[in-house]
Amino acid sequence: MKLVFKKSDLANAVNIAMRAVPSKTTMSILECILIDATTNEIKFSANDMELGIETAVKGEIIEKGKIAVEAKIFSEIVRKLPDNEIHISTDSNLQMNITCEKSKFNIPGRSGEDFAYIPMLEKDKFIYLSQFNLKEIIRQTIFSISDNDNNKIMTGELFDIKDNILKVVSLDGHRISIRKLELKEHFEDTRVIVPGKTLNEISKILTGGNDEEVRIFFTPNHILFEFNDTMVVSRLIEGEYYRIEQMLSSDYETKITVNKKEFLDSIDRSTLLVRDSDKKPIIITIEDGNMELQIKSNMGSMDENIFIEKTGKDIMIGFNPKFLIDALRVIDDENVTIYLLNAKAPCFIKNDDESYIYLILPVNFNANGR
Amino acid sequence: MKLVFKKSDLANAVNIAMRAVPSKTTMSILECILIDATTNEIKFSANDMELGIETAVKGEIIEKGKIAVEAKIFSEIVRKLPDNEIHISTDSNLQMNITCEKSKFNIPGRSGEDFAYIPMLEKDKFIYLSQFNLKEIIRQTIFSISDNDNNKIMTGELFDIKDNILKVVSLDGHRISIRKLELKEHFEDTRVIVPGKTLNEISKILTGGNDEEVRIFFTPNHILFEFNDTMVVSRLIEGEYYRIEQMLSSDYETKITVNKKEFLDSIDRSTLLVRDSDKKPIIITIEDGNMELQIKSNMGSMDENIFIEKTGKDIMIGFNPKFLIDALRVIDDENVTIYLLNAKAPCFIKNDDESYIYLILPVNFNANGR
Repeated sequence: MKLVFKKSDLANAVNIAMRAVPSKTTMSILECILIDATTNEIKFSANDMELGIETAVKGEIIEKGKIAVEAKIFSEIVRKLPDNEIHISTDSNLQMNITCEKSKFNIPGRSGEDFAYIPMLEKDKFIYLSQFNLKEIIRQTIFSISDNDNNKIMTGELFDIKDNILKVVSLDGHRISIRKLELKEHFEDTRVIVPGKTLNEISKILTGGNDEEVRIFFTPNHILFEFNDTMVVSRLIEGEYYRIEQMLSSDYETKITVNKKEFLDSIDRSTLLVRDSDKKPIIITIEDGNMELQIKSNMGSMDENIFIEKTGKDIMIGFNPKFLIDALRVIDDENVTIYLLNAKAPCFIKNDDESYIYLILPVNFNANGR
Repeated sequence: MKLVFKKSDLANAVNIAMRAVPSKTTMSILECILIDATTNEIKFSANDMELGIETAVKGEIIEKGKIAVEAKIFSEIVRKLPDNEIHISTDSNLQMNITCEKSKFNIPGRSGEDFAYIPMLEKDKFIYLSQFNLKEIIRQTIFSISDNDNNKIMTGELFDIKDNILKVVSLDGHRISIRKLELKEHFEDTRVIVPGKTLNEISKILTGGNDEEVRIFFTPNHILFEFNDTMVVSRLIEGEYYRIEQMLSSDYETKITVNKKEFLDSIDRSTLLVRDSDKKPIIITIEDGNMELQIKSNMGSMDENIFIEKTGKDIMIGFNPKFLIDALRVIDDENVTIYLLNAKAPCFIKNDDESYIYLILPVNFNANGR
């Protein structure tokens, strides 16, 4: 095999394929990138058995061939080479030569035959949206998946397509995040659970352009994302996702509107007095025109007041400050509206057309000894 | 005590004093900053018993007093408060109130009487130089101190003043770094060993301005740095520094000049094939007009060629690549000149007026099995 690349094309393709290389594995072939130039196109791929990525690379094929090479060292070498043409060749002993200007590296390769191919899927059912929208919708929901593998379903996100609406949902037992997006075309109803890890990795590869499109294909066990010269295939999580509709009551007794930045900055400051271990709630007291935020720990106490617009009853309620921060950080509106029922019921942060809904459960607190 | 500050003044002063707060200590009072407003000036200080910092803060004294407060939480609160006036007051129970706009924090303080004062020194003998020069000379030498406490002297740097030259030296048994700086005025001969930690911390506080001055005072056991509104006092390391003059032979058989960036980039790439643990040398082969760099490990091999100007004998010599990188990174010249004697003798990277000298010992290598 003999190939020639522009450094930037090569570095970019390696970075994309790397996203499917697991950081820890007992199967050393999974730590490799497969370079496949057996056809008229050069393709890099990686596969951790859950998630597979294949990307086409611009480059010149002088002699066809394929080889697998340890991803980490290969990517580091490529990154540190001068910004010029990079020549890659292999010999019959599976040694890979990488040369650029007067620099020459030699690293061991492995037979491409050992490499587990990415499954080929039927490409009939698909939706499409902009890279920007996909990247945003992931960012705005991914924080409330669970990282506890005991409940596999909570480690993924529901992608629910109905009529021409894509609804993305994540939940971890303490909160639910919901984002809705209108699709350009009608699509048949689909409900799948996509692993959070897949979405995290996709998010890192997406350039986020508004004009660039992603096509998402669905099969019974897999999801396939296609964009630019890259395809990402992931297994789906098996099982039935939670019926969240019954948790989304629209009853409320108190409705407030508050400047998002002031509210976020204030809660953010309150966390200075809380160590992760001691789960102190922030106590929010809502009265006409004013919200008081209080926190108290053995490190000290904080007390702040923020102007609000309020309708309905006064209320005093406690929250894990981190949950409020996570939701407020991904809302881009200047003001947010919050609906509350009582001190034991979840609060809802949502906008009028419900294109976002963040449900957060309150925590108990001792109103006197707080 | 009642004080009023501009947020930026307060944040800046806390950051300076924090540099003398140890990250780990069994004496909790050392984790505090002392706020002293008993005179007409507000001073913040911190002291880890080796290193003490005192800085004057702009602010209004409404009621005099002093208090010690846990540095970490205090600095975090100050940093996260809005950019406005900050009011600090204390009550008779040593509780500290921090208010800014509608935000109010309350944290426990400690009696200022518990705080170990920074020693007051005789200020008669001093030199002065620009903040820029002091910061640079530290950066250009600090990397070759030893971090092994078994040999205390190697953990510090020699400050050697003779005639009107300040010479700063560090060494760790494998290499020596020397930088010289001409002082504006003649000063009496002085040789002291300054702890590396002190120099690291000073370096972080110095704004690095060319027009701003630092005065350095010497007493038998201490060194005092005075700049802007800050003074930093440090114990000196006791003992006699190494006689380095006898190691600085000016004999050489080979002299080369090489583009610094090309040389550095090439060595930097070679380290991709070396894990810290396996100490593989980079083998340098010098011939007329060409330097070849080679490294080989079980991860692969590298071979590069760089154009050089050479006078004298051909030579093949091995080095720990990290030591070459450390020295080359702090030399700002476009080309560097290197003097070599033989494969067992140290190499010298130095300029014509010897304002810098970097001595690096070679390592043995097996010329065949390399």
